[in-house]
Amino acid sequence: MAKAKKDKPVILITNDDGITAPGIKALYEAVKDLGQIVIVAPDKPQSGMGHAITIGHPLRLQKTDLFPEIESYSCSGTPVDCVKLAVDKVLHRKPDLCLSGINHGPNHSINVIYSGTMSAAMEAAIESIPAVGFSLMSYSANADFSAAQHYARLVTEKMLKDKLTKHVLLNVNIPDYPLSEIKGYKICKQAYAKYKESFLERKDPSGKKYYWLTGEFINFDNARDSDVWALANSYVSVVPVEFDLTDYALKKKLEKQWKDKTDRSVKKPIKKIVKKSMRKSE
Amino acid sequence: MAKAKKDKPVILITNDDGITAPGIKALYEAVKDLGQIVIVAPDKPQSGMGHAITIGHPLRLQKTDLFPEIESYSCSGTPVDCVKLAVDKVLHRKPDLCLSGINHGPNHSINVIYSGTMSAAMEAAIESIPAVGFSLMSYSANADFSAAQHYARLVTEKMLKDKLTKHVLLNVNIPDYPLSEIKGYKICKQAYAKYKESFLERKDPSGKKYYWLTGEFINFDNARDSDVWALANSYVSVVPVEFDLTDYALKKKLEKQWKDKTDRSVKKPIKKIVKKSMRKSE
Repeated sequence: MAKAKKDKPVILITNDDGITAPGIKALYEAVKDLGQIVIVAPDKPQSGMGHAITIGHPLRLQKTDLFPEIESYSCSGTPVDCVKLAVDKVLHRKPDLCLSGINHGPNHSINVIYSGTMSAAMEAAIESIPAVGFSLMSYSANADFSAAQHYARLVTEKMLKDKLTKHVLLNVNIPDYPLSEIKGYKICKQAYAKYKESFLERKDPSGKKYYWLTGEFINFDNARDSDVWALANSYVSVVPVEFDLTDYALKKKLEKQWKDKTDRSVKKPIKKIVKKSMRKSE
Repeated sequence: MAKAKKDKPVILITNDDGITAPGIKALYEAVKDLGQIVIVAPDKPQSGMGHAITIGHPLRLQKTDLFPEIESYSCSGTPVDCVKLAVDKVLHRKPDLCLSGINHGPNHSINVIYSGTMSAAMEAAIESIPAVGFSLMSYSANADFSAAQHYARLVTEKMLKDKLTKHVLLNVNIPDYPLSEIKGYKICKQAYAKYKESFLERKDPSGKKYYWLTGEFINFDNARDSDVWALANSYVSVVPVEFDLTDYALKKKLEKQWKDKTDRSVKKPIKKIVKKSMRKSE
């Protein structure tokens, strides 16, 4: 990639719906004058890939002319692979900001865990690159991205301006309404919600069963600062996300409750340290 | 599945290395008398799949005779798919406990995010099923699982006995030493560590480039209660994990710092509530 233009932040854009999805084009159009944009996105839809990485087979990277004004690449891997490849093989540096989306469909509450959009952004955050995932609450191919674009730009401007903390990762969901019907954004927590799964069972021509994953979304969270609440009340939800998954409350509890048995499992005295050179791997 | 035998807890076992991996057999052997065991595991290795789910194509479930004493099934999907299918189509109920592993290779620190082993366990935890992922610090096909089995049994017994909290999810990593050289277990936090990626670049016979993901593990965390510290000091690490990824510290900061601009983005007055019936999707 060419050297960053003076004072122009380098912004990496990716997504999980694939490089030809309307959502990534909408995101690019919304922020293209805010920095030097480079796009590296999957060559096919990768929804539901979570934080998957490709380790069993190699990856391809293909320059595209889908965004004639800038450098853009399609990648054969997952959204997380795209971020890794972009840093190592396209940019040869860390971008100043990573934007992911705009996703076709919601990624609020528990969806943050399954979402390729958010995993790409999280991968950037792990690399100390400020990152935001944007998702529009509509699966429609003809969805109107204009309100989402407005908020994508607003949040991007704030991210470029504000020094927040070392690791900034935001999950932004935008209601599928016209801009005028959205009340603003609201800083939220991830709602406790989940899917009640039920698999559709079918039979192939040879009579063997197969299953399609379906499920009903159920919100268990009544808090007024949850993302589900915000979206249901016509706000854009902004959830700060972290990748330290330690449950510190349970840690404290276990330290007390499980402590006194900690060393009882050791059956024999610990052998001399010299034996450790015989370790197979670490 | 047959009805649970009286007083025997139902334990679901899964993994990400596939149903034929030595690690899942080792886990089964370690705990088989502690409950009524059912195994649903991927039909092929699924390492690095993170929290991926299969939504673009259907899933297959195949009864196997790999574990003659119990019911076992191989599944064409990801580790997370296995848990979902097990609950909905095999057990027709939630198991009392879900165990995942024993993984061939470490899943400490940031690996929790990429790990199929831990994602399967997390999927169970989201469903309010207490869950533990076990990983041995060795990639070797001939790894010695005996110390890992000892601790898998110990932790499983504790999980069955103790009522902890509604959502209990543990990430347990076991050093690749003989049992006698392990000092016990230690309740830990997830270390802040990451991979310094570098892709191997190669060319196919037609001269087109392709890339293999490689990387060097770097630990940035000096805390003595991190899992990396514990493992380096001959302890089994036990990290309580949560699936609420909200960064509450950043939430507090943003509520203050971004608040006063919250509603300025609204350009027009909010239209009448009646218009909301025209929403495309939610």
